[in-house]
This record gives sequence, C-alpha cells and structure tokens, in this order.
Amino acid sequence: MKIAQVAPLYEAVPPRLYGGTERIVAHLTDALIGLGHEVTLFASADAQTEAKLIPVRDQALRLDPAPLKSDLAAHFSMLHEVHRRAHEFDMIHFHVDLIHFPFFEDITQRTVTTLHGRLDLKDLAEVYRRWPLYPLVSISQYQRRALPLANWAGTVPHGVSKDLFRFGAKPADYLAFLGRISPEKRLDRAIAIAKRLGVKLKIAAKVDAADKEYFTQMIEPLLSDPLIEFVGEIGDAEKSAFLGQAIALLFPIDWPEPFGLVMIEAMACGTPVVAWRCGSVPEVIDDGVTGYIVASEDEAVAAVQQAALLNRRAIRDVFNRRFTGTVMASNYLHLYQTLTAGMDFEEPISVGAK
Amino acid sequence: MKIAQVAPLYEAVPPRLYGGTERIVAHLTDALIGLGHEVTLFASADAQTEAKLIPVRDQALRLDPAPLKSDLAAHFSMLHEVHRRAHEFDMIHFHVDLIHFPFFEDITQRTVTTLHGRLDLKDLAEVYRRWPLYPLVSISQYQRRALPLANWAGTVPHGVSKDLFRFGAKPADYLAFLGRISPEKRLDRAIAIAKRLGVKLKIAAKVDAADKEYFTQMIEPLLSDPLIEFVGEIGDAEKSAFLGQAIALLFPIDWPEPFGLVMIEAMACGTPVVAWRCGSVPEVIDDGVTGYIVASEDEAVAAVQQAALLNRRAIRDVFNRRFTGTVMASNYLHLYQTLTAGMDFEEPISVGAK
Repeated sequence: MKIAQVAPLYEAVPPRLYGGTERIVAHLTDALIGLGHEVTLFASADAQTEAKLIPVRDQALRLDPAPLKSDLAAHFSMLHEVHRRAHEFDMIHFHVDLIHFPFFEDITQRTVTTLHGRLDLKDLAEVYRRWPLYPLVSISQYQRRALPLANWAGTVPHGVSKDLFRFGAKPADYLAFLGRISPEKRLDRAIAIAKRLGVKLKIAAKVDAADKEYFTQMIEPLLSDPLIEFVGEIGDAEKSAFLGQAIALLFPIDWPEPFGLVMIEAMACGTPVVAWRCGSVPEVIDDGVTGYIVASEDEAVAAVQQAALLNRRAIRDVFNRRFTGTVMASNYLHLYQTLTAGMDFEEPISVGAK
Repeated sequence: MKIAQVAPLYEAVPPRLYGGTERIVAHLTDALIGLGHEVTLFASADAQTEAKLIPVRDQALRLDPAPLKSDLAAHFSMLHEVHRRAHEFDMIHFHVDLIHFPFFEDITQRTVTTLHGRLDLKDLAEVYRRWPLYPLVSISQYQRRALPLANWAGTVPHGVSKDLFRFGAKPADYLAFLGRISPEKRLDRAIAIAKRLGVKLKIAAKVDAADKEYFTQMIEPLLSDPLIEFVGEIGDAEKSAFLGQAIALLFPIDWPEPFGLVMIEAMACGTPVVAWRCGSVPEVIDDGVTGYIVASEDEAVAAVQQAALLNRRAIRDVFNRRFTGTVMASNYLHLYQTLTAGMDFEEPISVGAK
C-alpha cells in the first residue's frame, strides 16, 4: 500500500530524548517499510527515517531556538501539504490529535487517526460529536472511557522496534525509574519503595519548565539519600542498558495513563515492571508474568521482591508476541485494508487484543 | 447587512478585566448594531452584547476553573457551528487569528479576518502563502511589515465606545501606567521617569503567570518608593476615572506593538500620551496634539512636562474623529460592502487612514 504517516512537529521523529508520539511514528513507519509497503512521512526535517520524507518545517518545534514560532501555523501548513498530495496515498494516518479534522472531511474513509493522549478534557466530546466520520484508534481500551461514543475503529497497542532493545539476562543491583518528573508520575513513591527495600534506585528523567517548582520543592530534597542516583534525561542509545540492567522498572503512576510506553520498553529488555493499577496498566502488564500490578506501597515492596524471581526470557517472549513494531504495523495494516475495502465496521474492529 | 462576528474564546466579550481582542469585538458589535445592522455574535456564553448571541462554550477559557480543557477543540467546535450557519450571513468577520483558514475556503469573499497580534512569528508567512484568498485587515500599517505580501484588504484602527470614557477636563496629580507587566512593556522606564520628575505614578496592571518571575525580580523592588502606587488589575468601570484624572499616560514600550489600545482609551478621556517610537505608535499619536513620541528617558521627562500643557479637549476631539467604535464600524462596513459587491481590490482598500 501507499501509506502516509503524519507526525506531530513538536519533537523530531524519533525524538532525540524524551517524547512518545513521534517515537511511535518512527517505529511504525520503519516497521511498515519492513513489511514491504511504500511509506511517506510528513514531519520536520530533522526526522531520521527509511520512509520518503516530506519535510514541512526545518526542525521540530520544542528544541527550535527561534523565540517566536506558532505551533498551530506549523501544523496547518503541514496539513495543507498533506491535503494537496492526498491523491498520492491509499491511506493517510494522522498522529496530530484533532488538528486535521477540518481538512479531510471529503476523504475520511482513507484516513486513520490514532489518539495518543488522554481524552478526558472538557472541550473534546463536542469536537468528536461534530466530526463523527474519522475512524479513530485508541492505544488502550481504557483510553476510550471519556469518549465511549466516538467513532472507534480499533485499539492498537504501541510497539517498539525489537532491535533497539537488547535482552538483559542478568540484571545489576538497582531499580529503575524512567520518564518525566511531574506530580502524576509519582517519583516520590518510587523513592519511598527503594528506601524501604534498601535497594538502589536510578532515575532517568526529564524536568519540564512547568514542573520545575514541583521538582525543586518535592523531589530534590528526596535525592540526597546514597541509594538514589539521578541520571537526567537519556536517549534511545542509553535506554537499553539502563532498563536491561535493572531488577525491575517502577511505574508508580497516579493518573489515567493512556498507554505507558516505558513499560513495553522494559519488557523488551526482559525487565519486569511493578506498576500501579491506573489507566491502561492492566492491559499492558500480564500480572505475575511480565510484572506485578499493585495498589499501595506495601504491595509494591512485596511485588519488587517477587518480580526479581520472574523469568526474564518469558518477559521478552511476551514482548515479542504483543509489542514489537512489526506487531503494531500488522495491526494497523489490517485496519487500513478493512477501511480502504470500504467495509463498514458497525461493530468496532478489534485488533491487537491481548 | 447580516453580519457575523466571531470572537476568540479566551476572554469574555467584553473581558471582565484585561484583554484586547474580545474588547474590540464588543465595541465593534455594538457600534454595528447602532448603525442599524443585524449582528450575530459567536462567543462564549458569558458575553454581554446587544447582538444575537450564539454561545459556543459555557464560559471563556482563561477564567474557567476546569483543570483540563482544550483551546483548539473549543475554537474548532465554534468554527464548525459558524460554517454550518454561514448561509445566514452576508459577511462573516473573524477575530481568531488563522484558526478558521481550513474551514471557509469555499466562501473567502464573504469573510473578513482582522489580525490582532504581532505577525513576525517564524511559521506565519508559510500559512499566509498557502491561504492567499482570505481578505485580511491590519490594525496598523506597521503590523503588516512582517507579511507585506499577504492579502491585505485594508487597515482599520481600533475604536472604543465613546460612552465608556468620560472626558476629564482637569487632571489630578499623577501619571498613569495601564497594561500587562512584562519585559517589553517597560514599566521600569515609567517608574524611572516618574522618579526623575518627582511626580506620582499609579500602576494598573495585570501580572501573568509567565511574567511572575520578572515581576518579583525586576519590578517589585522598584515599587517601594512613596511616589509609586500599585493598583492591580482594573476593569472598564474604573478605567475612565483612572485614565481621565492622570496628567498623562506613559506608554514606554519596547516591542513591535501592533496597535496599543490603551493609547486611544486615554485619548477618549482627554489624557495625553507619552509613548516610545515603536510599532504602531506614530500612527496612533499625533505628536504635539494628542501626546508626544519619544526615544529616550530624557525626551520622555521633557515630554511629560510639555504634555501637561496640551489642550485636553482637542485630544478628545481627535479621539471622536478617529477612534470611536462608530468610526471603526463605519470603516469595516465600507470594507464589507466592497467585498460583498464582488469588487476586486488589486490596490488594497485603504480605510481608516489618519
């Protein structure tokens, strides 16, 4: 098939450091090419891809030092270009939330829209009511709860390229935390768990300007313990070693997580995950196989001890079966083909189930 | 004519406190009704207007306490509704930057778009190149410099309702500063000028979250002088007294101001303006009549002494001639009529000239 992937312009594809959506677009694009399809990627010029790249901005927005820029204008120009070339593609796959809705009303059946964020925002329901024809993909069943009546065409869990993550048979002596530092990610819980166990915790994390005050007031005072090591923001190159040598990944979140990419990145390394029962977590973790799902600090402390005994090869096997980039790409291809064949989906198409 | 006015959803129409664009929409709407036209206003439900109101959100975005909301989704829903009803209007006037560009490509000749902000942002030129058919209105000639080749149909200076501002024949003993506190507004200059003259300065200003640090570090230490009085954010009700009793308004800006609404609000009260030569200032101030245009602190100190001698009645007269809501509405009506008559404007239509 001739497929267009339309990425957000906030980060490079893939992002140099932190960043979820653009990373998934990168994995999906490369996996679709691996399956023999012709893929065109609309993204900023700093993308690294095997696809044909249509660069629509000289660089991604977040790290662009220009003092005055417009996120909306940049995305509008990109979507204008996608629309101009729409006839070149069998299928156009959008990863830009709802920004494209006014542009492609004439060809909704040749589009797929993956929603990457939480959907429980006040103004969203009205937009999905007004644009009911775009086939939508959720990244977990949980994510749909805020918009149960939207035009869901399927759920496709995220996947990441197998080759990026090395299996780590024998971990070192630390627990890992990887992500953004913000109140809902509950790094404070991870630190408390490590201290109670007397085990090292390594933290690879980014601090956004918006969370600087939270970091200074709530987190920094907790970092002085000799068990705690703050590594800073890391890229893909370091991630495999960081996760693969951990006894377990701690994912003590306190928010309606729509997917939780780092959980499958850990699984790709054979590293078990101890995660709070929130949002998509029960859909991603096989309790007792790839990790443990907990609801309190006490449970988490016990779970870390259990997790150290799990079979790391079995965890990697689950990853291989459910969460590679190729599995994700196959799921999307099935959806593209159903839609372009003009098949109705009165019952939502379910792909990528557990 | 049957005219739709499409307001931004950030502030109420008119704003309860600070806010420029929604205030202009309020003045324009009421003045068009005063001239006998049938006006429909698309805005949030907290609008106060003589027009027929189509409420498209329960309240304006900025003061809505809902923790999770989407500016873009809210505006998209509004524009979808405007498009659905587009056949009801002879002319649709947009005040929402470029958000409507993907929606109304089929009827650009029945639209007018007033650009209220600065235009020297990196991503804008490309958007105006891709959507060349929307007739655009600048609020000063200066504002156009960043986009000289855009589809300019006219320049219409802002106007405000005559009735809102009482002429103040005899000022009290202070200088006034009114606006937002941020580096480019240069309140520090206003304070320095007042201190050099030994004259009181009253400051009516809002501090945005983004400017909190600047306020604390750079401005707050300057406020302890007995000559300086910080009043806080004020609404329309207090503005007339605040401006009308001032010896002069200080407008010591250091940025490419596209219009500078407070200058004409002062003029409406008969109060002269001492303003830095930046952006639109030379188009708004008649040097030596409604105030003085300066380029340094020394010049500003001398100008304040001169300004106190200006004829306040003559200042109000200039306001009456150039900057009332009715003058603004007449300028726009001329433009609406030219465009709906299908007249080409190879030479840009110039209305509202000095």
